[in-house]
Amino acid sequence: RINPDRLWDSLMEMAKIGPGVAGGNNRQTLTDEDGEGRHLFRKWCEQAGLTMGVDTMGNMFMTRPGTDPDALPVYVGSHLDTQPTGGKYDGVLGVLAGLELVRTLNDLDIKTRHPIVVVNWTNEEGTRFAPAMLASGVFAGVHEQDWAYDRVDAKGKRFGDELERIGWKGDEEVGARKMHALFELHIEQGPILEAKGKDIGVVTHGQGLRWVQCTVTGKESHTGSTPMPMRLNAGRGLAQITELVHQIAMDNAPNAVGAIGHIDIYPNSRNIIPGKAVFTIDFRSHELDTLNGMVDRLMAEAPKLCDALGVGFEAEIVGQFDPPEFDHGCVKAIRDAAERLGYSHMDIISGAGHDACWINRVAPTAMVMCPCVDGLSHNEAEEITREWAGAGCDVLMHAVVETAGV
Amino acid sequence: RINPDRLWDSLMEMAKIGPGVAGGNNRQTLTDEDGEGRHLFRKWCEQAGLTMGVDTMGNMFMTRPGTDPDALPVYVGSHLDTQPTGGKYDGVLGVLAGLELVRTLNDLDIKTRHPIVVVNWTNEEGTRFAPAMLASGVFAGVHEQDWAYDRVDAKGKRFGDELERIGWKGDEEVGARKMHALFELHIEQGPILEAKGKDIGVVTHGQGLRWVQCTVTGKESHTGSTPMPMRLNAGRGLAQITELVHQIAMDNAPNAVGAIGHIDIYPNSRNIIPGKAVFTIDFRSHELDTLNGMVDRLMAEAPKLCDALGVGFEAEIVGQFDPPEFDHGCVKAIRDAAERLGYSHMDIISGAGHDACWINRVAPTAMVMCPCVDGLSHNEAEEITREWAGAGCDVLMHAVVETAGV
Ligand SMILES: NC(=O)NCCC(=O)O
Ligand SMILES: NC(=O)NCCC(=O)O
Repeated sequence: RINPDRLWDSLMEMAKIGPGVAGGNNRQTLTDEDGEGRHLFRKWCEQAGLTMGVDTMGNMFMTRPGTDPDALPVYVGSHLDTQPTGGKYDGVLGVLAGLELVRTLNDLDIKTRHPIVVVNWTNEEGTRFAPAMLASGVFAGVHEQDWAYDRVDAKGKRFGDELERIGWKGDEEVGARKMHALFELHIEQGPILEAKGKDIGVVTHGQGLRWVQCTVTGKESHTGSTPMPMRLNAGRGLAQITELVHQIAMDNAPNAVGAIGHIDIYPNSRNIIPGKAVFTIDFRSHELDTLNGMVDRLMAEAPKLCDALGVGFEAEIVGQFDPPEFDHGCVKAIRDAAERLGYSHMDIISGAGHDACWINRVAPTAMVMCPCVDGLSHNEAEEITREWAGAGCDVLMHAVVETAGV
Repeated sequence: RINPDRLWDSLMEMAKIGPGVAGGNNRQTLTDEDGEGRHLFRKWCEQAGLTMGVDTMGNMFMTRPGTDPDALPVYVGSHLDTQPTGGKYDGVLGVLAGLELVRTLNDLDIKTRHPIVVVNWTNEEGTRFAPAMLASGVFAGVHEQDWAYDRVDAKGKRFGDELERIGWKGDEEVGARKMHALFELHIEQGPILEAKGKDIGVVTHGQGLRWVQCTVTGKESHTGSTPMPMRLNAGRGLAQITELVHQIAMDNAPNAVGAIGHIDIYPNSRNIIPGKAVFTIDFRSHELDTLNGMVDRLMAEAPKLCDALGVGFEAEIVGQFDPPEFDHGCVKAIRDAAERLGYSHMDIISGAGHDACWINRVAPTAMVMCPCVDGLSHNEAEEITREWAGAGCDVLMHAVVETAGV
């Protein structure tokens, strides 16, 4: 069994870097705070005897050698970056649980046949630079590295430049590593495990995602002196599409969700009719047809709404992945570990995207989930218990060790 | 007659300071660019023999002496600050027309009995610091100076601190000056004069305004893993209120207008359900009852919409003025001047708020308007012709000289 207190202390220590304003974290990818978090993780790993490799996307790989020189490593990890108003566990738990299981193996002097590599993937959240899971996506060959480097944040800064600036652009070729398997522990970020009173979620599938960035174009003009019939108000396009997105999601619930989280209004002045609204729709479903059907309906109906308002409508997909199905062997290793350790468990579909969803394309992969309070995530008030974290990490360790061989 | 080419050259010269991105200007109040614009205006005024006074709100008063030592000055001017994506004429025309009429009187060696003071009012636009017409409002006793100093911009910077920073906090007590009369020339910012083919608008009344800043509070949560029925989406409150505002305005058109120009979404991340939306509604009408009725209806219906969504609703008035009626004598001076000079003219209601609307409370006041192309304003593409500017300035000069006495 792992040491839940040591794991918890590390979580709390990491949370001191990039504190939020309401008890959570703001340690967005490729900020100074991200750099600081990486240094702390590296220090802990080196103290545990791991050696570091960093690839050209800034992904960190911390290796514990195996006994068989020909055996491919078993990977375990998640991400250390957070939302702008993120919690202390989303991603971080998965990385530090990887470290904790290595510390436990060290304590018990257990050697595995396959090496174990604890990994921190760069820019999982996708808030500063869309899309999410950017660096694991490049690793899995889904995106080109040059394309990833050219992603810009809201201030126009390039991903590639910011990666160099914080000093975490490594020299390893991205995606060159071969994996025996990959495991990721993550908080559920939804309400199901807590509601059903289960310690462990065995993730069999995930939802697919489409991020549709829309631009509605009206005409900037004076809010006071422009007669009502002359107005081309981009804000009304946003308003009607907000409700359309909700309707489309409701018509497909409970097998789908949809909302708009990102909205920029131009020029955003109290006495100017909005001339432009740029916003991103997030549609998800674990059914590929449902997912594509939602986007099709949006693309059929949104232009009509905008036409009626006299405003322009353009849309672009800025993030997408199809619903993943995890490796049966890895999933079984997790289910068996939970069973063996006596934790209550259930099979579950991940509502969120995860680095494991991309790596699943190039290696046998699966995920463990632990509950979170009220299903709340992407909120500084995100909370879990020490027991939940410990149970998740225990199951993770057993699945990893089982797969790596003793 | 004034010199329209000299007036135009000065307009183009001023427009070089704080250029926009599309041919207009971004010279927002109390920015470095505002400071630069003030210095240029001061230089021109001093070359024309005017002497400067600056009050504690940064209002600039440039005096041309009169022949009667006991006569109160006639004031003429407008504002040099612009919208973030503003035009080259909104406000600037009124200030530089004041300068041009002084230059013309100098050329013709005409002395007036009353002094003439050309004025530049601070923060007319109200974009960076709400409300609009802030410094003329303090001058007229509508706002307390300390309250004005405490207004903050979107970055949390205080009006008072920024005024000191750019070095334009004067030592004159604000509002201490007594006025014989005040005249303001401004572009119409609406389509009426151009549509009716008139050179001159004689402004008899203005619209009143209510700026209602609303805060809709939902709950930040994950866009992927939060089930639809658990979502408290502040963005949907914004959407429904956007349409409500439009409906309220349409139900009162053509005697009223309404829209939302300013919208901030928190935390504005693609994969977080908006936890908070802050936005400002701009309602206007030249009928006081209509104006108040619109706000009453908003306050009755918006909370119900938000209740149904499970999100909170709060509202605060961050700017307001009642519909002004200008001084009959000053209005007549303008109408007579237009008639005498042979310009086509019509009486008109101002759709926008102006510094003259506040000064109207403490001195006899009126406004001249000239057409603008397509009624477009608060847009970098705002345009007027040299002839329109010249006609407006001519009428302004004749009304001022008539009132100041020769
Ligand atoms: N786990 C997580 O929140 N990932 C971010 C990508 C997503 O929005 O699903
Ligand atoms: N003239 C002008 O645009 N003033 C700004 C205040 C308003 O929105 O009416």
